[in-house]
Amino acid sequence: MNSNLFITFEGPEGAGKTTVIQKIAERLAQENIDVLATREPGGIEIAEKIRTIILNPAHTAMDERTEALLYAAARSQHYFEKVRPALDAGKLVICDRFIDSSLAYQGYARGIGVAEVLSINEFAIGKKLPDVTILFDLPPEVGLARIHATGNREVNRLDIESVAFHKKVREGYLRLVAQYPERIHVVNAEQAIEEVVEDVWSLLLEAMQ
Amino acid sequence: MNSNLFITFEGPEGAGKTTVIQKIAERLAQENIDVLATREPGGIEIAEKIRTIILNPAHTAMDERTEALLYAAARSQHYFEKVRPALDAGKLVICDRFIDSSLAYQGYARGIGVAEVLSINEFAIGKKLPDVTILFDLPPEVGLARIHATGNREVNRLDIESVAFHKKVREGYLRLVAQYPERIHVVNAEQAIEEVVEDVWSLLLEAMQ
Repeated sequence: MNSNLFITFEGPEGAGKTTVIQKIAERLAQENIDVLATREPGGIEIAEKIRTIILNPAHTAMDERTEALLYAAARSQHYFEKVRPALDAGKLVICDRFIDSSLAYQGYARGIGVAEVLSINEFAIGKKLPDVTILFDLPPEVGLARIHATGNREVNRLDIESVAFHKKVREGYLRLVAQYPERIHVVNAEQAIEEVVEDVWSLLLEAMQ
Repeated sequence: MNSNLFITFEGPEGAGKTTVIQKIAERLAQENIDVLATREPGGIEIAEKIRTIILNPAHTAMDERTEALLYAAARSQHYFEKVRPALDAGKLVICDRFIDSSLAYQGYARGIGVAEVLSINEFAIGKKLPDVTILFDLPPEVGLARIHATGNREVNRLDIESVAFHKKVREGYLRLVAQYPERIHVVNAEQAIEEVVEDVWSLLLEAMQ
């Protein structure tokens, strides 16, 4: 069994990624698999500071290319300081959001271009993409309703974008599935959380074969 | 006479760029030329915050690609919020450091690759380079000695790099001159400041023909 993999989770806010990742990480630990569960900026000081600039709701004048470059900058630091060393140490690394978020949000939904955003991200982390990516797919209205209902975290600059924007994000993600059918697997995130966990678990077992 | 140009000044710290730019801007104003003299981050809030992260001497763990992406991000914001509007309004824009700094420092001296750093900067600002670039050339030892002698500003993270690094920066700049002979003009910054001002003034008059 090969558990030295880099696995990323993608999808909109409100899709349940955080909860599912937590349960999956626990299950992996029970199976004695050495796992690092992380998310950008992941406690990496420089990346945290970059993230603060990106998500500040006061920065409405932020140029969309600046935003994409800042995400790539934070990604590079988090990747080389935390993800890469864990992979080199033989761990299974699970990351909540990664390059596909930039491709879907900035490249597709903001209209900068997926190829252009891919190129600055390849500059940031090299040409190697994650081994497996799991996309939590659900209609934006459902995800947004969940965020506003739970109120368990602060609403950030991206949450307050229009539903139309979030629809484009979903469209962007689904185009990436078409572009990378071997790498990106879709789970139906409208299901109950336990069912989502089971779907993700099956995909992981398959990947580790 | 065409004074609707984008002119950048390049070279190491201690080369006298700031002083010369100030004198040149005054002279342009006397000639009734509408000029904007700026430098990155140029008072642009988002860019200033990015700059704070880059120059913090505590961030010794900063990945070199992160650094290059942060410079490109700050550049994009400053360019679209300040430089581009001034050019669109018909002004002459003078900028203290621009894309060639990234090509020489990150691309060449840090070894990331000039073409790679150019590509993220083209993402940041588009493919149009400055109309004219004036390179203040002098041996690194002279520039560094001037910085330490005057002590009129705080020493930042880049100043404390080795002399060997600053030698590579100079080499990088001179290679850019070879790559862009039409655009980049060299002035001898070892001369007295008045002589440098005269050289720059001649180059400007020629550019505005």
